[in-house]
Amino acid sequence: MLAATRSLMSHAKHKKRHRSSRLVLPGPSEPGRSPGHLPTGGTGRVPMLQVMTYDSEVLEELHLDSAADLRTLATKHAVTWINVDGVDHADTLRELGEIYGLHPLALEDAFNVRQRPKVEDYATHLYVVVRMPLLGADDELALEQVSLFLLPGIVISVQERPGDCLESVRRRIRSKTGRIRNSGSDYLGYALIDAIIDNYYPILEHYGDRLEDLEARLLASSHANENTAIHAVKQDLSVIRRALWPLRETLSTLARDADGHIKDETRTFFRDCLDHTMQLMDIVEACREMGASLRDLYLATLSQRMNEIMKVLTLIATIFIPLGFIAGVYGMNFDRESPWNMPELGWTHGYPFALALMSATTLAFVVYFRHKGWLGGKNE
Amino acid sequence: MLAATRSLMSHAKHKKRHRSSRLVLPGPSEPGRSPGHLPTGGTGRVPMLQVMTYDSEVLEELHLDSAADLRTLATKHAVTWINVDGVDHADTLRELGEIYGLHPLALEDAFNVRQRPKVEDYATHLYVVVRMPLLGADDELALEQVSLFLLPGIVISVQERPGDCLESVRRRIRSKTGRIRNSGSDYLGYALIDAIIDNYYPILEHYGDRLEDLEARLLASSHANENTAIHAVKQDLSVIRRALWPLRETLSTLARDADGHIKDETRTFFRDCLDHTMQLMDIVEACREMGASLRDLYLATLSQRMNEIMKVLTLIATIFIPLGFIAGVYGMNFDRESPWNMPELGWTHGYPFALALMSATTLAFVVYFRHKGWLGGKNE
Amino acid sequence: MLAATRSLMSHAKHKKRHRSSRLVLPGPSEPGRSPGHLPTGGTGRVPMLQVMTYDSEVLEELHLDSAADLRTLATKHAVTWINVDGVDHADTLRELGEIYGLHPLALEDAFNVRQRPKVEDYATHLYVVVRMPLLGADDELALEQVSLFLLPGIVISVQERPGDCLESVRRRIRSKTGRIRNSGSDYLGYALIDAIIDNYYPILEHYGDRLEDLEARLLASSHANENTAIHAVKQDLSVIRRALWPLRETLSTLARDADGHIKDETRTFFRDCLDHTMQLMDIVEACREMGASLRDLYLATLSQRMNEIMKVLTLIATIFIPLGFIAGVYGMNFDRESPWNMPELGWTHGYPFALALMSATTLAFVVYFRHKGWLGGKNE
Amino acid sequence: MLAATRSLMSHAKHKKRHRSSRLVLPGPSEPGRSPGHLPTGGTGRVPMLQVMTYDSEVLEELHLDSAADLRTLATKHAVTWINVDGVDHADTLRELGEIYGLHPLALEDAFNVRQRPKVEDYATHLYVVVRMPLLGADDELALEQVSLFLLPGIVISVQERPGDCLESVRRRIRSKTGRIRNSGSDYLGYALIDAIIDNYYPILEHYGDRLEDLEARLLASSHANENTAIHAVKQDLSVIRRALWPLRETLSTLARDADGHIKDETRTFFRDCLDHTMQLMDIVEACREMGASLRDLYLATLSQRMNEIMKVLTLIATIFIPLGFIAGVYGMNFDRESPWNMPELGWTHGYPFALALMSATTLAFVVYFRHKGWLGGKNE
Amino acid sequence: MLAATRSLMSHAKHKKRHRSSRLVLPGPSEPGRSPGHLPTGGTGRVPMLQVMTYDSEVLEELHLDSAADLRTLATKHAVTWINVDGVDHADTLRELGEIYGLHPLALEDAFNVRQRPKVEDYATHLYVVVRMPLLGADDELALEQVSLFLLPGIVISVQERPGDCLESVRRRIRSKTGRIRNSGSDYLGYALIDAIIDNYYPILEHYGDRLEDLEARLLASSHANENTAIHAVKQDLSVIRRALWPLRETLSTLARDADGHIKDETRTFFRDCLDHTMQLMDIVEACREMGASLRDLYLATLSQRMNEIMKVLTLIATIFIPLGFIAGVYGMNFDRESPWNMPELGWTHGYPFALALMSATTLAFVVYFRHKGWLGGKNE
Repeated sequence: MLAATRSLMSHAKHKKRHRSSRLVLPGPSEPGRSPGHLPTGGTGRVPMLQVMTYDSEVLEELHLDSAADLRTLATKHAVTWINVDGVDHADTLRELGEIYGLHPLALEDAFNVRQRPKVEDYATHLYVVVRMPLLGADDELALEQVSLFLLPGIVISVQERPGDCLESVRRRIRSKTGRIRNSGSDYLGYALIDAIIDNYYPILEHYGDRLEDLEARLLASSHANENTAIHAVKQDLSVIRRALWPLRETLSTLARDADGHIKDETRTFFRDCLDHTMQLMDIVEACREMGASLRDLYLATLSQRMNEIMKVLTLIATIFIPLGFIAGVYGMNFDRESPWNMPELGWTHGYPFALALMSATTLAFVVYFRHKGWLGGKNE
Repeated sequence: MLAATRSLMSHAKHKKRHRSSRLVLPGPSEPGRSPGHLPTGGTGRVPMLQVMTYDSEVLEELHLDSAADLRTLATKHAVTWINVDGVDHADTLRELGEIYGLHPLALEDAFNVRQRPKVEDYATHLYVVVRMPLLGADDELALEQVSLFLLPGIVISVQERPGDCLESVRRRIRSKTGRIRNSGSDYLGYALIDAIIDNYYPILEHYGDRLEDLEARLLASSHANENTAIHAVKQDLSVIRRALWPLRETLSTLARDADGHIKDETRTFFRDCLDHTMQLMDIVEACREMGASLRDLYLATLSQRMNEIMKVLTLIATIFIPLGFIAGVYGMNFDRESPWNMPELGWTHGYPFALALMSATTLAFVVYFRHKGWLGGKNE
Repeated sequence: MLAATRSLMSHAKHKKRHRSSRLVLPGPSEPGRSPGHLPTGGTGRVPMLQVMTYDSEVLEELHLDSAADLRTLATKHAVTWINVDGVDHADTLRELGEIYGLHPLALEDAFNVRQRPKVEDYATHLYVVVRMPLLGADDELALEQVSLFLLPGIVISVQERPGDCLESVRRRIRSKTGRIRNSGSDYLGYALIDAIIDNYYPILEHYGDRLEDLEARLLASSHANENTAIHAVKQDLSVIRRALWPLRETLSTLARDADGHIKDETRTFFRDCLDHTMQLMDIVEACREMGASLRDLYLATLSQRMNEIMKVLTLIATIFIPLGFIAGVYGMNFDRESPWNMPELGWTHGYPFALALMSATTLAFVVYFRHKGWLGGKNE
Repeated sequence: MLAATRSLMSHAKHKKRHRSSRLVLPGPSEPGRSPGHLPTGGTGRVPMLQVMTYDSEVLEELHLDSAADLRTLATKHAVTWINVDGVDHADTLRELGEIYGLHPLALEDAFNVRQRPKVEDYATHLYVVVRMPLLGADDELALEQVSLFLLPGIVISVQERPGDCLESVRRRIRSKTGRIRNSGSDYLGYALIDAIIDNYYPILEHYGDRLEDLEARLLASSHANENTAIHAVKQDLSVIRRALWPLRETLSTLARDADGHIKDETRTFFRDCLDHTMQLMDIVEACREMGASLRDLYLATLSQRMNEIMKVLTLIATIFIPLGFIAGVYGMNFDRESPWNMPELGWTHGYPFALALMSATTLAFVVYFRHKGWLGGKNE
Repeated sequence: MLAATRSLMSHAKHKKRHRSSRLVLPGPSEPGRSPGHLPTGGTGRVPMLQVMTYDSEVLEELHLDSAADLRTLATKHAVTWINVDGVDHADTLRELGEIYGLHPLALEDAFNVRQRPKVEDYATHLYVVVRMPLLGADDELALEQVSLFLLPGIVISVQERPGDCLESVRRRIRSKTGRIRNSGSDYLGYALIDAIIDNYYPILEHYGDRLEDLEARLLASSHANENTAIHAVKQDLSVIRRALWPLRETLSTLARDADGHIKDETRTFFRDCLDHTMQLMDIVEACREMGASLRDLYLATLSQRMNEIMKVLTLIATIFIPLGFIAGVYGMNFDRESPWNMPELGWTHGYPFALALMSATTLAFVVYFRHKGWLGGKNE
């Protein structure tokens, strides 16, 4: 159901984690590894590096195959955005770290995906982790880790794998829409985080729709079996909630950052971002509440259905068992010589009498059940 | 059920959102749009602008068709209230922003309805969002967004669509009731927010009445099926709660605003407003608690009803199945030549004996059930 | 059930509220009314004014019919207590406000009963709202609003209607018991609040007793139907809780009041009061927890009872249906000429054989049920 | 069940409270009594006063019959511990108050047992309330109130009634174990509180054992009826929790007391005490969680048991009712002259055919049930 | 289930605790013992002392049998790590305390295992308690207490018993991997705590896997009985949660320690540790939520299964009981002389008529049930 949250790292070292629980994110490092050290000889796929460097006038776009090529890249323009579309190749990360002076603990966190969203201030740069939500085929939810290194004039983004929701930012850079080309690298950092947070809206809309479909089905038919579907939505919402909860703290830190990484005017935008996150939290909570309410509705529906089934059984059984008993009585074989024994059998209208007795019994029960309110549509 | 909370924006761009979940509010901007920018070429309905400008002596009322007409409006009186009764027409908002120097992010929030209640301080003006509750036909709850821009001497209110609960404020301005004509624009801002908050009382009273009707019906009849109704009320209360919760923080900010937007004497009134909001929160929580209690009551009622049904079935079955068995025994066809075989059939009083046996069995069960407390009204 | 919490205000204007939900308190003012203004031409019952004015030596008691008479009242003694036993007559409140300079918002709150407990500091006086619990006939809970205006040397108390729990304070004033006659008006204010809070103890004791009676009944008999009773107690406790919760904050404000309304030595007494309120909160929470626990107990009891009923049904049905089948077999009418057809019917001991077969079947089931633990008292 | 928490005060005035709810502690004073005043003419049992006065060299022990004897007691040694083993005799408390200058509100709290644990600073002395847990016969839980007055060089402890868990402290004083003889009166206060808190461990161990017994019984047999037992343990734990919760705050106040009542080195010990209290809170919460989990387990067990019962009933009924029907068909009395009527009865192998038909039906149902997984032990 | 959390202390004094509840940790000292005093004459197993003393150049490893040998140990290298693999032998701890000046309360806490995780600052040294998770055979969870004494240049770790997860740290010291050989004793303290925290990941992965297995089984088959398994996992998670919760506070204290025990650069690492702990808390909460969700799923499954069973019973009973009744009617023995009595029996096609009647009845019920949606696979 949440296959995408399972580790997709391909190199051999992490193979064991491939089958690991989707509830438990892989640890920050293999137990026994020295903290802050990337594995040597990264065997993963060599990631593509997409570089956009621009100021309000000029825009250059490059696609590099190797991080080493960055050394020759003069950062002649105001803002440079380096996007790395994969984390499996430790050497690339190590090289990036060396070129730009990134902190080893931050690099390790970027490599070991499945961090909680957070921001960390390493003096020369900020390290931000956010999780990018993606709905795959079969509505499988994935929360891909995106690491952002915010340096003066440079933003380095590291994704788990190719494919993202950042195309809108690239378009705005290319088309000079809005203020992005006239702002610094901190605004670019904001634009990236904002694009990722905006991507939660359609995802949550999707879950809201599913919940309302479930509600409609539960209310329409008392026989729908939505137990599994409700459980699945609740589990996914719980995963999204865990991704959003620490994000709030992260953005709140960025919005009041006092160490000069973020300019004052950009901080206003981060406050806006924080506002959206709290709105998302509201929606997630509303969805979760809806989920819990649907489960209650479903349980009550099950009880009602059982009541209905039992009413039918009770009706049939209480009407026909006494009738069967009457028929049984007149099927007894007592000797008819004695005038005491079953004189009804000898009556001229014995059979009509028995049928009348049966009808009367049936009628009595029907009256009783109508009195109890078990018949007719008024209570169903 | 909550149709009114669904987006009512009519222009084509947002059409997709029309069918969107009522749980998920449309995002602050379409993903990929530059933040702080209104769409150009607004195609929505051109809203009506209702202007009231007054001081303690004079009151002028104007209805303008276009925001451009505001440029010629001399703000010669102490207080000017501009009410915009629709948000679909982006050009109107943009023009307002230009004339009065409103912040782009605030304008975007006013345009993209479904913000959480909040107050934001943009140096030259305060931007306040509150949600106005309305009960439509069929008791459909709507929570319309009202944006207030508080400038020195000017209050701009932007509603989602025509129709509001602010008529009482207009009447007070016209009739010079109370202190409104002698107070500044901050008091007008307070009066508008107060009128909106006061409108929650009859709405909550409505839900309180519905809950008590449900309670009365559940207590009166053990056969009422109120599952769906309880679910509906709980969902609506959950929506109202989400509108009130952030309102508390908003008003608390206004009541202790230290930046000079709000005068000291008006702050006392905002504290009163905050008091009402907390009272409303109390009521919502009481209603929600009542809703949860009713659901428990309902579930217990279902269990009890099942017990009652099962008791009837068990009673009938346990009495008549043994009787049927006795009748069956004396209906067996064993050869009567053997004195061992069914001598009762030959007895002179065999039939009365069988009937007596049946009566005794019935009596035994009746005594047993009375002992168990299943008969008689004492436990029902 | 909570009739007394329904509005008891008699004048026509509020008639609509008379039938309003007990969950929703009437709003602070009618929507559309200017805040801080009492209705003119109050048509309610003219309240009685009971004045006690005393110092350590002298005590004067007066009963006035009109607030206007207060103007001639020289406050020659150290402490004056004016008790108003009804709030329906707006003119009386207005006159009081004029004579003693009470704040319009405070007067409006006193008039519009159903405020949350609170304390408000209006420079010249403190305004305190507490709720006085009363158990009416039929154990109906009422939480009457009592407003206290604490001025230097003067305490004005406004009750909803005649009848209170303050007689003990009057007795202490008259009999010079304790320090009340030697203390200032702040101590009198404390004494009144203390008397009201003390009145919660017997009320909560009453609910505690009811809960324990319910528990005893549930534990004694597995057939008691206490669903409605548990629901009623839980609802009342929820009402009391809402009255106590804000009281804590109120008293905490009074106990650390730094603006000189309360003397230091009296503050110690308010701390004691706060202590009692927290104790009351503890009791309410304990009662609510007990209520929830009883509901669980009750639901489990219902399930157990159902198990018991089903066991009886299953026992009878599984024993007698097979027996009935055997009897049915020997009641078949196959032609006895063929030696293959029902030879048992011709046996000399056919009937005893059939009875033995039936007994054996019964025995087998009894052994099976005993093995399952369904027979005997050990599990019931 | 909690008889010991019921008031045990014997004098007439409180007789009404004897039958009062165990949920509601008697109030701080009878409504109408002046606060801070003890009743005159205490008619309770005259308590025994046990005095231990010591320094590092000397230890004197006295047993006094009357508080008046304390006046002649020279406090020549460093530390004096006066233990009063009963609170019913108001005169004793009043005399103690006069001799040592204890605050009237503190004395009243000591007299009116059932205070929440708390510490109060009355300038000349600290007043501490803790609750001492005792398990009586029949495992009845009692939480006896112990009041401690901490004066310079003097500790006065007031218990509800004779019998305590402080013997270990007395032994340590007598045998000079540890630092108690070399420390001041604040250490003695700590030692007493520590001894009382340590006494919670075996009590909680007792409840932990009971919960594990319940768990073992629930897991061992699906027929155990532990509803009442779970309810009882949960209620007792709720009582203990209410005694511990405010204790945390009390000890935290003592551990950071800055007013000189407690010496710095003793404060380290109070921090240790606070640590234990938090550990106790942890245990209580774990027990409560276990209790809730057991209730869930029990409810699920009830449902499973019902399923099992119903499976047996359904099995028997669905197998034998059709068989009975077949037997019934061949028991019909249609005229055999017509070749259309019941030719099977005339067949040579009619009876074996009928039996075979029945067997086939039975087999069909058995196959069906095996397919459904209702037979065999695999799902039970 | 949690045998390992039961006390494993072997010496006689604690024997009583061996059978004590796993919910209740043994108290900090036997009631009646003087706090801060270890028992004399420790009779437990004499623990092995493993000493590693190193600087960036040299590493010495020693295994000592007695703490007394430590006196002769010159601490000539920068960092010395003394690991004690057992706490039963009080004399060893006492000797350690004397040699290194450890605080008696800290030593007592190290001896009395089952402390909550905490850090305490005893001026000359820090005392840290963490719990090391271990999965024994049969998946039994143990949370072994590890006490760390952090002195300048010296780290003393005291485990409950031999066997730990610290081998990776030893390997890194021996192989000079990472910065451990070049850092001070505070980094060694961090490395030990980090190794212990990292060990929670595989344990939680184990529980995550078990929960997903349970989920898979519940979703795959509606007949799985996972009640006991869910209960067991929930109980274990509750134990782990209690070990992690205070750990957060502990690490947060270490990460902002301002008293010089921890160097600034090491504090960054403790912040990383704190981050991992919060991630672990997240996972535990996710697992617990999953557990609760599974229990709900299971309860709903039970209700559904019951519905299914009841449907089968109702189907069979409502079809065959009426048929049986018809057969019973034609088995009655009324005298055929009267033309009124059972003329059908004399019809030429009486038997086919009866069979047709039965078929029609069956058909009617089948149509009814199909209408109700009880037949066919669409709702199951």
